[in-house]
Amino acid sequence: MTAPVPADVLSRLKSVLGEGGWSQDPDRLAPKLLEWRDRWRGTTPLLVLPKTTADVAAIVGICFEAGVAITPQGGNTGLVGGQIPQGEVLLSTERMRAIREIDVDDEVIVVEAGATLAAVHEAAAEVRRRFPIGLASEGTATVGGVISTNAGGTQVLRYGMARNLVLGLEAVLPNGEIWQGLKRLRKDNTGYDLKQLLIGAEGTLGVVTAAALKLFPLMASRAVAFAGVASPEAAIRLLARAKEETGGGVEAFEIMARQGIDFVLKNIPGARDPLAEAYPWYLLAEFGSGEPGASEAAMERFLERGLEDGLIQDAVVAQTDAQAKAIWNLRENQSPAQKTEGATWKHDVAVPVSQVTTFLREADAIVRAVVPDARIVAFGHIGDGNIHYDVLRPDGGVDAEHSARRDAGSRQVHDLVARLGGSISAEHGLGAMKTEEARRYKSPVEIAALVAIRNALDPKRIMNPRVLF
Amino acid sequence: MTAPVPADVLSRLKSVLGEGGWSQDPDRLAPKLLEWRDRWRGTTPLLVLPKTTADVAAIVGICFEAGVAITPQGGNTGLVGGQIPQGEVLLSTERMRAIREIDVDDEVIVVEAGATLAAVHEAAAEVRRRFPIGLASEGTATVGGVISTNAGGTQVLRYGMARNLVLGLEAVLPNGEIWQGLKRLRKDNTGYDLKQLLIGAEGTLGVVTAAALKLFPLMASRAVAFAGVASPEAAIRLLARAKEETGGGVEAFEIMARQGIDFVLKNIPGARDPLAEAYPWYLLAEFGSGEPGASEAAMERFLERGLEDGLIQDAVVAQTDAQAKAIWNLRENQSPAQKTEGATWKHDVAVPVSQVTTFLREADAIVRAVVPDARIVAFGHIGDGNIHYDVLRPDGGVDAEHSARRDAGSRQVHDLVARLGGSISAEHGLGAMKTEEARRYKSPVEIAALVAIRNALDPKRIMNPRVLF
Repeated sequence: MTAPVPADVLSRLKSVLGEGGWSQDPDRLAPKLLEWRDRWRGTTPLLVLPKTTADVAAIVGICFEAGVAITPQGGNTGLVGGQIPQGEVLLSTERMRAIREIDVDDEVIVVEAGATLAAVHEAAAEVRRRFPIGLASEGTATVGGVISTNAGGTQVLRYGMARNLVLGLEAVLPNGEIWQGLKRLRKDNTGYDLKQLLIGAEGTLGVVTAAALKLFPLMASRAVAFAGVASPEAAIRLLARAKEETGGGVEAFEIMARQGIDFVLKNIPGARDPLAEAYPWYLLAEFGSGEPGASEAAMERFLERGLEDGLIQDAVVAQTDAQAKAIWNLRENQSPAQKTEGATWKHDVAVPVSQVTTFLREADAIVRAVVPDARIVAFGHIGDGNIHYDVLRPDGGVDAEHSARRDAGSRQVHDLVARLGGSISAEHGLGAMKTEEARRYKSPVEIAALVAIRNALDPKRIMNPRVLF
Repeated sequence: MTAPVPADVLSRLKSVLGEGGWSQDPDRLAPKLLEWRDRWRGTTPLLVLPKTTADVAAIVGICFEAGVAITPQGGNTGLVGGQIPQGEVLLSTERMRAIREIDVDDEVIVVEAGATLAAVHEAAAEVRRRFPIGLASEGTATVGGVISTNAGGTQVLRYGMARNLVLGLEAVLPNGEIWQGLKRLRKDNTGYDLKQLLIGAEGTLGVVTAAALKLFPLMASRAVAFAGVASPEAAIRLLARAKEETGGGVEAFEIMARQGIDFVLKNIPGARDPLAEAYPWYLLAEFGSGEPGASEAAMERFLERGLEDGLIQDAVVAQTDAQAKAIWNLRENQSPAQKTEGATWKHDVAVPVSQVTTFLREADAIVRAVVPDARIVAFGHIGDGNIHYDVLRPDGGVDAEHSARRDAGSRQVHDLVARLGGSISAEHGLGAMKTEEARRYKSPVEIAALVAIRNALDPKRIMNPRVLF
């Protein structure tokens, strides 16, 4: 818990922001102090609601001078508790939502941190462009949060993480100074790339106030397929083939275990299995091309060849947008469908693609040694080696018992990930939840370097102090 | 000039490296102390030639303790003097050239810093993969240099700079400790991305000793065309169209002014103009696709449409690899063809794509106000807004006179770039040449942050001290 904020600092913050620029109303604060899955609840002496970058600079400047801690918050959709204050001043970007500019020649959109991802998609669509980060939470998740957590999603395979999609940033650094780095250049080799440091810094190196994001042309053709496969190995071999055959046209390549499909069919109204029989694993493939008809043709060839040589056991291709959406719903409901099934251990791990099969086999063995009847839902972005590996309590089991075993069980899963050269947080970040765990797997050399960088930019450690090293 | 290195430090370095691990032989040193265009000549008390990462750690550790400065050098192909020592210990990676591993499932190659880019291409080709950075100097340029300067090239439009193509790094930090960050993950959100800081740091934050680089499948189809166009505006409109029509299939999109083509035809043996008439501007477009025949079809449609509506005045498509190579030679000889034409002011600038036309128009006006008959060779990666803008002395002019005007002239060109939101070093870096110039255009806020980061990791400023802020 952070030290209490002196009353005079609170007064100064209120007076600089004026009416509407802050709140202490419990009803107003409540939704911002509760993580959406109810895993973290926080407290704050003051919610500040800047409207401009200058407001943010004033807030951070006052806090820096007084050594008062700040937790920045976007859409509050984070999964690792990084956005929930524990006594810090809470800075919300909700009043900074402007789309400042969109330019088709530069293929750029300049937006403020509080704009939602959905607002970006909408603005881009109006000029026949797209921003290729899609998240289930995109109606709420903000640009500032997407950047600060280096968000990924299902299109990383082709377009990279948020890190690859930011051309420029405007931010307030921990000392309250405004860094105007809102360039829209594809190339700029003039010293260390400060924006790359802020991306994924989870709010510890300053407050991102606006960003220039890369846009891409719409695809002229798109093909979505759902296929039953025997194993993750089969999916990996198919992925390599899909990459070769499309020459960069794979938009998404996701795998799901049968257990996850079962939960979706059981718990999500309207969901149905597009295939006649059940298979141990499934893959969802999407191809995109600027060439009209090219994706459909490539998908057809890809599935035919897979069916012929037995790598694919059965498959369907979406014939309409509604069918494509129904297939994607099977994937996007993998998490929601677990909600009513009881306690779970969640893991968001990445391993080299060549190690995915080993990971899944050994992780299952680890889990079953602890909880023999655990229901394991493995799914994710196999092209990135990023597996969401969820371990649910046995059918009819006791939640508390399962949860009590979580730390020990997850520790073993994470140790396995480390042995395979992987990451214990592929896309969610460390936040308040995983920083201590991550300390086990980082070398002291790396941690010392990260701490030195942080101290250099935030010597009083006022920015999101409970998060990261 | 750096302070003299104490004799005992030289002895310790020699003894730790042993026979073959160092040199003071003037003949051995000479080629490493001369920049290839003869613009910088350096000196060093000792050339160190580590064979392993442990050697590098020992060298840097000894120098760190004693506060002795080091200049790391790869293939010595840099264009801004960053690799030429002025009294520092010179660390060459020439004995660290191993290709440690190549893995098709992970689409990764793990190579040591001293391996050349050409060696990477060769190793990748053996497994039917490619690494999409191509440089004219690739037979000499090393992986360590490519990473430390965040190299670009002609395929940035599709694949990004070096920054986007590195999965993991191994490096020796300025304190002599080895950072083992040689991951091969597509996703890893566990704290600040240290590798992103080292990429483009020009050797100031440590010595890159090895890297894990992303590989890509070979393309099944490829089309290269050369077209005459009326103006850069036309090229920009054509680029937007090409991006839309190919849906990400544009591999390269380069422009060249007639003046540059004239020099190539005059000075490069065997060069010929593929078009019957002369045009004010040219574009070289390359499309690639995994779909057999798709690129050729897309290129044909693209050229037809351009010819129909007059954006393209005449065009040829390469029918053979030899023809494609001949077209690319026109582009790659833009610099070499100038060599015998006398003194020149070189600029490697980037502006937002939407500002390229303004830049070219206003830069020409600036230059002609100073040197009315200057021969201006503008060419480059229009898709990235990256223009190589070379100003040669008038035909029959006096070299010394032209060179004497360079600083004042370039200053005005750079001021223009800054006004247009651009960068004065798009891909070459700042090195010893442009750091002071860059100081004019960076905000004090940014420079302070960059210096703080450097001090945090290299408190004695031993790594390439004359380079960057």
